[in-house]
Amino acid sequence: MGMFEPDPAFLATSHELGDLALCQARLQDDVRYPWVVLIPRVEAARELEDLSREDLARLTDEILAAGRAVRALGAQVDKLNVGALGNVTPQLHVHVVGRRVGDPAWPGPVWGHSPAQPYEAEVLAMALVSARAALGL
Amino acid sequence: MGMFEPDPAFLATSHELGDLALCQARLQDDVRYPWVVLIPRVEAARELEDLSREDLARLTDEILAAGRAVRALGAQVDKLNVGALGNVTPQLHVHVVGRRVGDPAWPGPVWGHSPAQPYEAEVLAMALVSARAALGL
Repeated sequence: MGMFEPDPAFLATSHELGDLALCQARLQDDVRYPWVVLIPRVEAARELEDLSREDLARLTDEILAAGRAVRALGAQVDKLNVGALGNVTPQLHVHVVGRRVGDPAWPGPVWGHSPAQPYEAEVLAMALVSARAALGL
Repeated sequence: MGMFEPDPAFLATSHELGDLALCQARLQDDVRYPWVVLIPRVEAARELEDLSREDLARLTDEILAAGRAVRALGAQVDKLNVGALGNVTPQLHVHVVGRRVGDPAWPGPVWGHSPAQPYEAEVLAMALVSARAALGL
C-alpha cells in the first residue's frame, strides 16, 4: 500500500480506532454526533476512482461496519449520513455519521456546520471501546 | 425490485437521465454544479445496509460512472463529492457532485447551501445528451 500517512488534519480532529483491511478507522472528536472516519491506507488516493475494484469492495464493507460502530456508540440514530468530500483535506476519506432528528445541524449536513464539541476523557474512553468492539478491533 | 417510484422531491429538483443496472440516474437541476443523483430502484431502501451485496457492488460501479458523467458535463472539476444523506428525503440516494475551487459553496458542502439555479432549456438539453452518453444511456 505504499507510504500511507494520515493527513495531520485528521490527527487534530479525531482519535485512531485501528486498522481495518483497507482503512484506518478513526472516531471524530465531536460528542454531538456518533461519527467514524475511514481513510483508505492507499498512498496518494484522492477520489474513489483511485481505488482498485478489490479495494472499493473492501471500502463498501468497511462503510457498513462503520455504520454498525456508529450505532454501537449508543446515541439515537435516525439516519446515517455517508460522505466522501475532501474539499478541505483531499486525502481520500469517508465520513459515516449518525444523525438524530433535532441534532445541531439537522437536517443539513454536519460538515462545516459548527465547531466540534470534543469528548471528555471518560466518555471518550468508553466510546473508543464500543466502536472498536463493533469494528472487531 | 418491487414497486419503485422516485420520491416526488426528486422530480421537482432533477431531470431523469435513465435507468442503469441498479439506479435511476438523474441530473440535478442546478447549473452551478455538475451533479448526478443515483436512486437505487429498490423499494423501501433508506440506508446502504438495506442493499444486497450484489446491489452494493452495482452501486459502486454506478457511482464511478456518475463521476465520469459529471466530468463529461464540461465544467472544471477539482474534487468529486459523493454523499448519501437523506435527512430531508429518506429514500436511498447518492449524490455525485463535481466541485470547483471557488464555486458558490466551496469548500463547504453543496447540500443546504443556497437555492438552485435551474438550467436554461438549451443548456439543459446539451447537458442531458452529454451525461447520458457518458453513462451509456
